[in-house]
Amino acid sequence: MADKDNRKKVEAITSMEVDFAQWYTDVVKKAELIDYTSVKGCMVIKPAGYAIWELIQSQLDQRFKETGVENVYLPMFIPESLLQKEKDHVEGFAPEVAWVTYGGLNPLQERLCVRPTSETLFCDFYKNDIQSYRDLPKVYNQWCSVVRWEKETRPFLRSREFLWQEGHTAHASAEEAEERTIQMLNVYAQFCEEVLAMPVIKGRKTDKEKFAGAEATYTIEALMHDGKALQSGTSHNFGDGFAKAFGIQFTDKDNTLKYVHQTSWGMTTRLIGAIIMVHGDNNGLVLPPKVAPVQIMIIPIMQKKEGVLEKAEELRKRLAKVARVKVDDSDKSPGWKFAEQEMRGIPLRVEIGPKDIEAGKCVICRRDNGEKLEVALEELEDTAERLLVQIQKDMFERAKAHREASTSVAMNLEELGQLLDTKPGFVKAMWCGEQACEDRIKEQFAATSRCMPFEQEQLSDTCVCCGKPAKKMVYWGRAY
Amino acid sequence: MADKDNRKKVEAITSMEVDFAQWYTDVVKKAELIDYTSVKGCMVIKPAGYAIWELIQSQLDQRFKETGVENVYLPMFIPESLLQKEKDHVEGFAPEVAWVTYGGLNPLQERLCVRPTSETLFCDFYKNDIQSYRDLPKVYNQWCSVVRWEKETRPFLRSREFLWQEGHTAHASAEEAEERTIQMLNVYAQFCEEVLAMPVIKGRKTDKEKFAGAEATYTIEALMHDGKALQSGTSHNFGDGFAKAFGIQFTDKDNTLKYVHQTSWGMTTRLIGAIIMVHGDNNGLVLPPKVAPVQIMIIPIMQKKEGVLEKAEELRKRLAKVARVKVDDSDKSPGWKFAEQEMRGIPLRVEIGPKDIEAGKCVICRRDNGEKLEVALEELEDTAERLLVQIQKDMFERAKAHREASTSVAMNLEELGQLLDTKPGFVKAMWCGEQACEDRIKEQFAATSRCMPFEQEQLSDTCVCCGKPAKKMVYWGRAY
Repeated sequence: MADKDNRKKVEAITSMEVDFAQWYTDVVKKAELIDYTSVKGCMVIKPAGYAIWELIQSQLDQRFKETGVENVYLPMFIPESLLQKEKDHVEGFAPEVAWVTYGGLNPLQERLCVRPTSETLFCDFYKNDIQSYRDLPKVYNQWCSVVRWEKETRPFLRSREFLWQEGHTAHASAEEAEERTIQMLNVYAQFCEEVLAMPVIKGRKTDKEKFAGAEATYTIEALMHDGKALQSGTSHNFGDGFAKAFGIQFTDKDNTLKYVHQTSWGMTTRLIGAIIMVHGDNNGLVLPPKVAPVQIMIIPIMQKKEGVLEKAEELRKRLAKVARVKVDDSDKSPGWKFAEQEMRGIPLRVEIGPKDIEAGKCVICRRDNGEKLEVALEELEDTAERLLVQIQKDMFERAKAHREASTSVAMNLEELGQLLDTKPGFVKAMWCGEQACEDRIKEQFAATSRCMPFEQEQLSDTCVCCGKPAKKMVYWGRAY
Repeated sequence: MADKDNRKKVEAITSMEVDFAQWYTDVVKKAELIDYTSVKGCMVIKPAGYAIWELIQSQLDQRFKETGVENVYLPMFIPESLLQKEKDHVEGFAPEVAWVTYGGLNPLQERLCVRPTSETLFCDFYKNDIQSYRDLPKVYNQWCSVVRWEKETRPFLRSREFLWQEGHTAHASAEEAEERTIQMLNVYAQFCEEVLAMPVIKGRKTDKEKFAGAEATYTIEALMHDGKALQSGTSHNFGDGFAKAFGIQFTDKDNTLKYVHQTSWGMTTRLIGAIIMVHGDNNGLVLPPKVAPVQIMIIPIMQKKEGVLEKAEELRKRLAKVARVKVDDSDKSPGWKFAEQEMRGIPLRVEIGPKDIEAGKCVICRRDNGEKLEVALEELEDTAERLLVQIQKDMFERAKAHREASTSVAMNLEELGQLLDTKPGFVKAMWCGEQACEDRIKEQFAATSRCMPFEQEQLSDTCVCCGKPAKKMVYWGRAY
């Protein structure tokens, strides 16, 4: 009975080759990461999903703090007049915010929006908090949720409320602001590659794609398994635009009043969507060990036989010194437990039964490639530790190889269109710098400029679209 | 010049004996814990304040997880129809919630309130997530912010938005729910006493004071330095009231459908207010070492002399192995730095100058009692570590002695009133169990029943108010 249900559970996942979107939804639901709610476009992040976010948070936060970031908390409400102070910013966000109009039984004198992002609040705060060059730089960050009234939503990728961090900094000079913008982009890129095992392209957004109110937006772009791009983190340099709109001035060492230069940068729970779509397979989620809430699941075989559960518990205690480990001693069959462990993406499975115990060994199985290994029990901790490192590394290399195999070069519009249709992935092509060409490519192929990568190549001298002299190489792609 | 400003800064704190409320506001502002904002009733929690919250979070969260709690995240919005499902609950909260009526440019079909607490959302989630006894218990918690449209606000103590954790559990039996309610109250009490060095009274709220929708509310009550009580954490047993209102049923082992029994429990950023008012003095904040973001500040004396800053840095590196430590090498005078370290409540100060270096010693000064000690440099780590433990212990004992000295017994109404006016603190008195007596005491003396303590005493046989037979001993007090 249990086994039948189990098979049903596994069979119920749509194959990613048949329908990638449905596969994604199935994994999200069956790995118990999220649940839908009565609030349209808002999700419950369940324990298995939230534990991944906690691991992302703690490791990212530590990297922030190593660069001098301090955490703060600002209100979730923005008075309408404050949101309107920076012209480009309000145009970008006003159409998609939620408005609070009543406090208790009384209508508010001024309506408040629920923060879609907090540039305006930080500016309002910095305006009073910054007086002198001695007060600079301010390198603040907050972990919170934000709201954007999206029409179409998908778990983790696009929802009306999502969790994120937003860093907001203020500096005495333009150079220092630019330096911090790039520094945080590098923190993001290293975090994605080292912790999420997800290779990213670092680059700058075109003016069309940049953040509302920014002078420059930098981005890291990752490639999902289906060949679509995912913007995975952005870092913005605002110059002194917000400072002028909000009047954030300081007395410099030379005793003159100057405007500060500001940056902001953010990553979100969207990263969990990225993990799923970069690493997942037809058996479910595959978690990089560094963000796996459980790294090793011990599954006892014939657990009712004397000594099996005791041995499993002994191994758990030993492995707990090197990893996050659990024993599945529920009354389900081993087959069911294997399928659950695979669905949940737990990197390693240890199988231990009466025969193994007699032989002084166990079987250890890698989630990422299915490899099985017989291990002498006395070598278990060393082997598990080594395998977790190896899995983390292999997952990165596999994702990188996939991205490289999915990156092409187009020399003209026809090629660009053909590649986007036949070989899903990034297409590198030259661009003249005119928005008209971006608009045309978007209209014709539903593809956008993902970024102008820092690592430029001179593929040709002419724009892929209009044939005029090219200024930049751009990564183009269809995106989430 | 620097020193003059410094004195001004310190002098600007109102003495707590002169005006406790103003003293509190001064400390909150001058220790740079919070700032006011353009959003009425909402605060900025600045780095020094937020770092305390991070230490509270991490230590409380660890204690939760040791009892099997799992973290989740639910939406911040509650549809009006959902809030209305439990009658007492909506009556309690509807008058003080913020309502979202527009999403982007369009009016919503159903308005959404910003969560004041999430019982209704958890019920809506559990209704689908719980099917069988195998799905129980659910022991979930979330860290988030909530909104209550208060008319009068005070930093940390009462604000329109505040940060908290809210645990929400579902159980198969009434006994298990009651057990969890008490278990979490005990976690709270131990946390307050062991981490915040703040003694608390554990007890049950009267029906008048209990949470909207609860069968029973348990509380921990602390006494502030001015003799006012502060409710510092609550744990509620809902019985099956919410389960019936929301239809949360499960199939039990005997194959019958049953309603779950639920609990919820919360602590908030109000705890930071409690730390200030229990431990602070006329020089500013005094932080218990376990929640002090910086536990030791090293202040170099005559830092421009050769070798002083190098020695300070050497000591910092050594102390970093046993504590959170910083060097204040700014260009302010030592006097200014001392005052700042005291204002910010940093538990230990290490003074090191050329003469100390020559003598192979330094001065170490306790923030909590001003005690100064000469320490041989080779004994610095051991001494600092020992002192931090001692300070944590002494602060608890001092707060407990203050509470005991501020707790009286009243045998009749006249005594009760007189004690409340002349000896601020808790007054223990017997109560008949009738709300009429609570109402009368509140009206006459502006005091409320804080709790019916678990440790009952039989002070007399009759109610302090009406003279009828007494049922319970109650702690009465004026409260924040």
